[in-house]
Amino acid sequence: MNNTQRPLILVTNDDGITAPGIRTLIKVMTKIGDVVVIAPDSPQSGKGHAITIDSILTCNPINIDEGEQVEYSCSGTPADCVKIAVNEILNKKPDLCVSGINHGSNSSINVVYSGTMSAAIEAGIEGIPAIGFSLLDYSWNADFSSLEEHIEKIVLKVLNKGLPDGIVLNVNFPKTNTFKGIKVCRQARANYVEEFDKRSNPQGKEYYWLTGKFTNLDKGEDTDVHALDNNYISIVPVQFDLTAHHFIQNLNGWF
Amino acid sequence: MNNTQRPLILVTNDDGITAPGIRTLIKVMTKIGDVVVIAPDSPQSGKGHAITIDSILTCNPINIDEGEQVEYSCSGTPADCVKIAVNEILNKKPDLCVSGINHGSNSSINVVYSGTMSAAIEAGIEGIPAIGFSLLDYSWNADFSSLEEHIEKIVLKVLNKGLPDGIVLNVNFPKTNTFKGIKVCRQARANYVEEFDKRSNPQGKEYYWLTGKFTNLDKGEDTDVHALDNNYISIVPVQFDLTAHHFIQNLNGWF
Repeated sequence: MNNTQRPLILVTNDDGITAPGIRTLIKVMTKIGDVVVIAPDSPQSGKGHAITIDSILTCNPINIDEGEQVEYSCSGTPADCVKIAVNEILNKKPDLCVSGINHGSNSSINVVYSGTMSAAIEAGIEGIPAIGFSLLDYSWNADFSSLEEHIEKIVLKVLNKGLPDGIVLNVNFPKTNTFKGIKVCRQARANYVEEFDKRSNPQGKEYYWLTGKFTNLDKGEDTDVHALDNNYISIVPVQFDLTAHHFIQNLNGWF
Repeated sequence: MNNTQRPLILVTNDDGITAPGIRTLIKVMTKIGDVVVIAPDSPQSGKGHAITIDSILTCNPINIDEGEQVEYSCSGTPADCVKIAVNEILNKKPDLCVSGINHGSNSSINVVYSGTMSAAIEAGIEGIPAIGFSLLDYSWNADFSSLEEHIEKIVLKVLNKGLPDGIVLNVNFPKTNTFKGIKVCRQARANYVEEFDKRSNPQGKEYYWLTGKFTNLDKGEDTDVHALDNNYISIVPVQFDLTAHHFIQNLNGWF
């Protein structure tokens, strides 16, 4: 069954294995390579780079829809899915890991909260070229079809050229059908201003729902937010060496 | 009660509000400032930068031990604790956020999995100077007393000098009583090689425990792992702009 000319592609996400976003991504990837899907059995949005160390994991074969892909449903986080794929399920290291397509933006500071991007980053940590894809549309029934040709193009570029050790790609699509093109960007400096919704439970005890308003603090025209606002597809090269190298010399003078 | 000369210090962690590590940190902080503790009600190790968006949060006043600090126990992740502190509980922005002392290392790639560091990073995102402290000893009864004078010194430096926007500090202590000094470092390039422990439940269904072996791929003498191996306290300046700026120009040529 395994055509050795075709790359082995690991597919995961954070919205869960049945989400329309990952089903689109699987469809595109099966045109390019041999596809193994190991994705969360339930939504894992906002799980960041969480891993499961104080509970058990399950990872079971499953058939969601037709196609040549092999699929597993995992009880863990997106980062867990990549770990169990690489170290337990797959019998060779994948040539590529793709994560998504996320239902919603992972531009700017969203990258640190994102399960989608943490899966890609986990693959990068394991030495696998990796890309996270996201669409700026949170709806379950978002239209992913117009993304397909662009995803294929980006994936083929990465398979052809490779990525340097320590770098993965964060690709976001604006909510439009008329993409102006691709822009390589830096991550915009932004945060969320939270507005906790305080309520009382039926016994009168207080609880909160976390809600927040995305606040872009960065007026730069080279940011992902700016590109997306102008209907460009944004690509940010993301690293997991978090060292602020430019501050080391200054900090050395403190001690 | 509030002495306006004293800084307002937010304390949190990921091992939970009763952990000896945070109790030591609170003790040191009450010497320096007015302390508000908002910490998880249960262990949150490995939760990375997870936030709670699909469930409720509680955050209730609690008294754990004596002292001038005000304390709240929160049902959420470390990042949730900082969000609810800044946006709901505190009536002014804290002058500093400290997280820890973590029971175990957050050097090298551990920074991306760490709830302790994600709390510090969340504070940094909110524009608050922040430091995560960790001790390379996973035991609940680790000896934190020898760390106190060094933590005080580092905190006073940060309060005095401030930190640039977008940078927080990741401080790790080796497991020794004879610290050789402080080294400002970069994050070592490392990963975990997972060894999933596969078992069967009483009904015969398979499940896994995630276990892994830390594997340092980086022989540099300027890394945090190297410093800690040589009994130095390591400080890595950490940024949450994950952009690999050095790869932007190259990547621009692809499209």
